[in-house]
Amino acid sequence: MRIYSIEILGKVGEEVELAGWVDSRRDHGKLIFIDLRDKEGLAQLVFRGEDENLRKKADELRPEWVIQIKGKVVERPEEMKNPNLETGNLEVGVSELEVLAKAETPPFPLDTDGYEINEELRLKYRYLDLRRQRLKRNLVIRHQAAQFVRKFLSDWGFTEIETPYITKGTPEGAREFVMPARLHPGKFYVLPQSPQQFKQMLMVAGLERYFQLARVFRDEDPRADRAYGEATQIDIEVSFMSQEEILSLIEEMFIELVGKLFPEKRITQVPFPRISYDEAMAKYKADKPDLRENKEDPNELAFCFIVGWPMFEWNEEEKRWDPHHHIFTAPRASDIPLLDSDPAKVRSWQHDLVLNGYEIAGGSIRITDPEVQAKVFELVGIPKEEGRSRFEHMLEAFSYGVPPHGGIAIGFDRMLIPLLNEPNLREVMAFPKTGDGRDLMTGAPSEIEEKQLKELGIEIKKKK
Amino acid sequence: MRIYSIEILGKVGEEVELAGWVDSRRDHGKLIFIDLRDKEGLAQLVFRGEDENLRKKADELRPEWVIQIKGKVVERPEEMKNPNLETGNLEVGVSELEVLAKAETPPFPLDTDGYEINEELRLKYRYLDLRRQRLKRNLVIRHQAAQFVRKFLSDWGFTEIETPYITKGTPEGAREFVMPARLHPGKFYVLPQSPQQFKQMLMVAGLERYFQLARVFRDEDPRADRAYGEATQIDIEVSFMSQEEILSLIEEMFIELVGKLFPEKRITQVPFPRISYDEAMAKYKADKPDLRENKEDPNELAFCFIVGWPMFEWNEEEKRWDPHHHIFTAPRASDIPLLDSDPAKVRSWQHDLVLNGYEIAGGSIRITDPEVQAKVFELVGIPKEEGRSRFEHMLEAFSYGVPPHGGIAIGFDRMLIPLLNEPNLREVMAFPKTGDGRDLMTGAPSEIEEKQLKELGIEIKKKK
Repeated sequence: MRIYSIEILGKVGEEVELAGWVDSRRDHGKLIFIDLRDKEGLAQLVFRGEDENLRKKADELRPEWVIQIKGKVVERPEEMKNPNLETGNLEVGVSELEVLAKAETPPFPLDTDGYEINEELRLKYRYLDLRRQRLKRNLVIRHQAAQFVRKFLSDWGFTEIETPYITKGTPEGAREFVMPARLHPGKFYVLPQSPQQFKQMLMVAGLERYFQLARVFRDEDPRADRAYGEATQIDIEVSFMSQEEILSLIEEMFIELVGKLFPEKRITQVPFPRISYDEAMAKYKADKPDLRENKEDPNELAFCFIVGWPMFEWNEEEKRWDPHHHIFTAPRASDIPLLDSDPAKVRSWQHDLVLNGYEIAGGSIRITDPEVQAKVFELVGIPKEEGRSRFEHMLEAFSYGVPPHGGIAIGFDRMLIPLLNEPNLREVMAFPKTGDGRDLMTGAPSEIEEKQLKELGIEIKKKK
Repeated sequence: MRIYSIEILGKVGEEVELAGWVDSRRDHGKLIFIDLRDKEGLAQLVFRGEDENLRKKADELRPEWVIQIKGKVVERPEEMKNPNLETGNLEVGVSELEVLAKAETPPFPLDTDGYEINEELRLKYRYLDLRRQRLKRNLVIRHQAAQFVRKFLSDWGFTEIETPYITKGTPEGAREFVMPARLHPGKFYVLPQSPQQFKQMLMVAGLERYFQLARVFRDEDPRADRAYGEATQIDIEVSFMSQEEILSLIEEMFIELVGKLFPEKRITQVPFPRISYDEAMAKYKADKPDLRENKEDPNELAFCFIVGWPMFEWNEEEKRWDPHHHIFTAPRASDIPLLDSDPAKVRSWQHDLVLNGYEIAGGSIRITDPEVQAKVFELVGIPKEEGRSRFEHMLEAFSYGVPPHGGIAIGFDRMLIPLLNEPNLREVMAFPKTGDGRDLMTGAPSEIEEKQLKELGIEIKKKK
């Protein structure tokens, strides 16, 4: 039974079976040393040259070949011990060697951190790029962070509920991906920008505490610092909690997460400051203030919540008010009269979480009063009839006993950037696309067959 | 601070705050009793009528109204105790009542199991349908099962890795959902039928143990017993494990899952029988045999693995061999010579998991030898050139040191059907579509704006 490299610890004198990749080789006269790499680390193999056949086979080994060996775990001679390696006191004297796969020379080095390599090349050969220690570690910690969040929220009585990805459009501003509905010619499905309506429906259903590590989709214009198309968000919605109760919960989650998975990090200020939008603008000239005391310190994390946001911003072009967050965000109760008299002055129950100057989460307490909702539709220029018909199912749902509710969505990829000290989103995802939406590894997007287009009832528009 | 109904246990004599839905009311002369329902259960509220205003407000309460109350927890009189209710020994004498939202009368009863109600009506009002105990419980247990699987696999050293949903087509037979690529006119993205290529790439990358609770997408023709469009699968891929090691792992996972979350269930036979395809056909005339000893017992679970599948089936229409599983499934090493001489006799490393006569999982050990892969392309009628170009990235990846690997995908929704004793997939999902792909709650699919079509460079084909 094959064991991991790390498991040779405590097996001195025993016969073991290992498998993995040739990380490097060193020839010392008649001795050949191979560093065998597997998921858990490195183990040094030694071929002593007593068995001529084995020695010949070992001589052929090249970096990145996949091998399986049997051998005996022994202490290294004192002067050969390597304190920088977990298994550095031991080596495995190989008695059997099987080559499972040979390997071409990779197009770039795998033992560096990789930032120096052309990124398009890295993305084309992502399956090799991911062999580097840094990226493998990023994926593993990402997994641990997801597991932590799931456990934390489950312990708080939250239920993770999967909402559909094949759905109907919502008007949240960003461009949407659409799919022709083969069974309903002329109609389309949409990939969700957020599970907004579904999570609010779950509150109407009385689930009370929902979360989901949800994929969200936006067809954005090319931006070099982005990964195109999809992102993961920790999506949370809860009934009967005040804004402050939601913020406290999120604060506790981040403090525990950092303590558990990033113990080298220091949080500048606990509790996280709650700063009103007006104060942030007056004091820091920014609605995403960077509150780090020492911006050179890669291990400092300065969180703050921004609250007291204006409900609307004036859209001069369209001569109407745009919602600052989204159309389901509730105004503060005391400001409701201002909806008629002075919309600019209305403050909402929006909340953002800022980390080191980046907005990593946003949310709000939602509107549950149909009259307030109708008023907001009116102010943002959705005609009464249209608002009624586009959101009929939500307004109707709210007529059957809607609890007060609100939520927050945390950009999971985005929050990992400062936690993993990475420069951009693509370093914290397994298979990112380029900023302009190409998957360089698989070749997406690509042409599809005429037959498929025909079935879907669409045509590619000819260029005039 | 509001507490859950269940939390009144052990709070006798204390003032508490509760919130939730009016489940039912009973008037006993001057006393009004309300069963308050929240996420965790029911608590009996009593309005004693001493406060005239409060009594008047209580008198207005109707089922499904959302209320918040303050009151004192007291023991019920002995003859009023209800042993069928967790909080049945207690009641809350209300001193303050706030109505948070009124409610229309629901279009169907919420206190039944719901099977008797027209399903289209249930799906249209899914936010009410989900208020019923049975469905709420299904969602919570589904969450617990997902959490269990994640923890089990993590403890086994697996990493959950998110693979893209906006991707390129794979040739696995089912129809795919396609999205016009706005930034690349004439090209399309595809929603994945499975993360097949990505998970194999992760094996090349040396992650060794991958899993993902992945959404998978198929544009299937209408079928009454299905939920259209998307499903969740527990997707597992692993390097350096034999087929039997994979099966043992899955077996252990299901035994622990059942023991922990479904203790009322009994597994017919442990270890799960491993049955060859030939034996299954000879003995049970089925490749999905139902091995229950008593088919009337709703708590019996009969698992078995089917192995030794034929690699191909002859497609008389197209005059070629079709892969029985998929084109990446490995033939048994001893059968490789038969690829040339007698493809019908080749056995593969496919494995299925069958539960009570339903196939709930399938997988295989994969091909890692480029020559064998080329031969399979040839047999299934993919021309050499085309095979090369369509799968170039995979074949190329395999040239850089590919470990032996294999995997299995478990239909998560599907496995929950027998575990939750439900008749179909729609009862174990939060927001299923109808068999013909309509979301009756939100109204998807729907028309989109001409402007959007124009941006995407497509046109709806006019009917001739």
